[in-house]
Amino acid sequence: MAQTDLVFSCNYQRGKARLGTIRTVHGEFETPVFMPVGTQATVKSVLPEDVLKTGSKIILSNAYHLYLRPGTETVKAAGGLHRFMNWKGSTLTDSGGFQVMSLGSTVKVTDEGASFRSHIDGSEVFFSPEISVRAQVDIGADIIMCFDQCVPYPVSKEVARKAMVRTTLWAERAKSVPVPRSQALFGIVQGSVWTDLRKESALSLSRLDFPGYAIGGLAVGEPKKDFYEIVRSTVGYLPEDKPRYLMGVGHPLDLIEGSLSGVDMFDCVLPTRNARHGRAFTFEGGLNIRNRKFAGDYGPLEESCDCVTCKGFTRAYLRHLLVAGETLASTLLTIHNLRFFQRLMERIRESILEGTEERLRESILEVYPFREE
Amino acid sequence: MAQTDLVFSCNYQRGKARLGTIRTVHGEFETPVFMPVGTQATVKSVLPEDVLKTGSKIILSNAYHLYLRPGTETVKAAGGLHRFMNWKGSTLTDSGGFQVMSLGSTVKVTDEGASFRSHIDGSEVFFSPEISVRAQVDIGADIIMCFDQCVPYPVSKEVARKAMVRTTLWAERAKSVPVPRSQALFGIVQGSVWTDLRKESALSLSRLDFPGYAIGGLAVGEPKKDFYEIVRSTVGYLPEDKPRYLMGVGHPLDLIEGSLSGVDMFDCVLPTRNARHGRAFTFEGGLNIRNRKFAGDYGPLEESCDCVTCKGFTRAYLRHLLVAGETLASTLLTIHNLRFFQRLMERIRESILEGTEERLRESILEVYPFREE
Repeated sequence: MAQTDLVFSCNYQRGKARLGTIRTVHGEFETPVFMPVGTQATVKSVLPEDVLKTGSKIILSNAYHLYLRPGTETVKAAGGLHRFMNWKGSTLTDSGGFQVMSLGSTVKVTDEGASFRSHIDGSEVFFSPEISVRAQVDIGADIIMCFDQCVPYPVSKEVARKAMVRTTLWAERAKSVPVPRSQALFGIVQGSVWTDLRKESALSLSRLDFPGYAIGGLAVGEPKKDFYEIVRSTVGYLPEDKPRYLMGVGHPLDLIEGSLSGVDMFDCVLPTRNARHGRAFTFEGGLNIRNRKFAGDYGPLEESCDCVTCKGFTRAYLRHLLVAGETLASTLLTIHNLRFFQRLMERIRESILEGTEERLRESILEVYPFREE
Repeated sequence: MAQTDLVFSCNYQRGKARLGTIRTVHGEFETPVFMPVGTQATVKSVLPEDVLKTGSKIILSNAYHLYLRPGTETVKAAGGLHRFMNWKGSTLTDSGGFQVMSLGSTVKVTDEGASFRSHIDGSEVFFSPEISVRAQVDIGADIIMCFDQCVPYPVSKEVARKAMVRTTLWAERAKSVPVPRSQALFGIVQGSVWTDLRKESALSLSRLDFPGYAIGGLAVGEPKKDFYEIVRSTVGYLPEDKPRYLMGVGHPLDLIEGSLSGVDMFDCVLPTRNARHGRAFTFEGGLNIRNRKFAGDYGPLEESCDCVTCKGFTRAYLRHLLVAGETLASTLLTIHNLRFFQRLMERIRESILEGTEERLRESILEVYPFREE
């Protein structure tokens, strides 16, 4: 295994759930951790300093997006992603596997890699495991991901199996690319909703000895039951001493279920995207701030919240900004929603320590009964 | 004259140019002053705290806009504009006269007031001098403006004269509305490009003894020569001991010319609107940040600038945000442009004190030879 500066320590375990820390050259954070999404080297509409104030210590960007625009050489010449976007915490880049799948029928995947047309200008692009890792080395995130073949849901088991086997093959090739020790390359488990495929994927990746492992290809439309089952069973085949990252997840309940299943890292667009649609998360449930009833509501989004938005601005003002089409609404709601997700992670970590997971799960289930969007 | 808490002190004068301070119940600021525009109770895309950091101490909002949305009762119930938008400095609201003119042929103006259709939902609205002042009392800005009849350019002298006479009539009626002493009501001089009409307007308004006077109806397309001549001559007919406000101005050169003519206050959308179009002001000239040449430019927007944007972000990053359609570009460029305008005002005040106005005028004229947009 390549040497890496990334240090994962598990400090406490109850059942499958565990508490730990991850240290990168850009700082340390507690796990289970939620990582805000900043696809294009910006957490949309929020200054990096204000993202930090939400308690977020690692954010996620995307190699596919940055490769196409502004180009990885631009990020490299800036001194890497941290300096390019003026972010003082840690970073992770996804490899682009998920984005390539999202392009649908215009993608041609062979063992070599994936050919597709850029979503920006239609130009032809070829992505391979080696190209993706090299791009991510140029970008310079603390944690980088192997290029994987995601499959949509539903898909035949044979197609899922082939993509899983290819993902492992690609992981081997990704590992052969030199990576500075300041960066840690994680493998990605695939296999759709079949536990045996997931097991095979997890075990063969583990043999490659990555400094961390992700569970990919979930939250793509599969039933919740299958989703939870896959997470639980897959975690069992991953090394105890390495961080586990559940990609693209998720809904508040999913963060609880994932954490209780032994997952250490999460990312999701939910807090940021919902904010831009005028929706706020609170521990009393979601709020659609466009709703007329907030026009004369001079309370904060959430009484118990300590974020910049709740400390200085009312629901009535936020509704005014939304209705008037002012982008400051997105900024303020994003700040609050990110803080909500960080507070939720704090509560999850606390509940694991205190053995009150069930109470937390029930209180969240009561106000967030099903997946939003 | 109604008593007011507003205090204007002139501390230094050279020729017509003067340096002073204005104190409101929300703080003190130096004059000549530039006021950023926050039409809808927000300086677009920037948190109020970050607006303060640009050195801006008074911002401008709009009674017409807030009357229509969210409604002045909403702002009043919030505790007034300052609390509604969480702005810790001073505020000024324009009356809506300029906005009503901008609606064009759908407006019917009589001595009573102006009838028009809302630009938001087409509903019929009637605005009078009394309604406008009452709306502004509800909004609660430190400085409020009489409802005036603006005329477009060009216009016949007879039409300009009638609008000017009506504006004075309306100013008398505005003065009859009770205003708390924490708010100061300013009169507005009209008269298009005719110096005799402007003189008549200034003298008759002065007799009404307002705590401050504005020159309105300029920067609407008239030749620069006329514009400067009107400003210079009108100032001569306004009281020495009251602040003078040149509305909707302006271009860097206009701020210099206006200040040298004895104007104390300015507002303009130029720094904020240009920012949203990807254009940055610097003392070496304007920059179109979308330009390809900035893709690999890792310097700040302006080496000598001390704003949040220049301290943390490069031209290459700003260009990336712009090209990628990220709203953070507007936020960062607005912060810089507002800081540029405040630094320009600092230089103007300094040049008046040191007698170096000519040198400043020439250096600005060299890089901003004509009006932008």
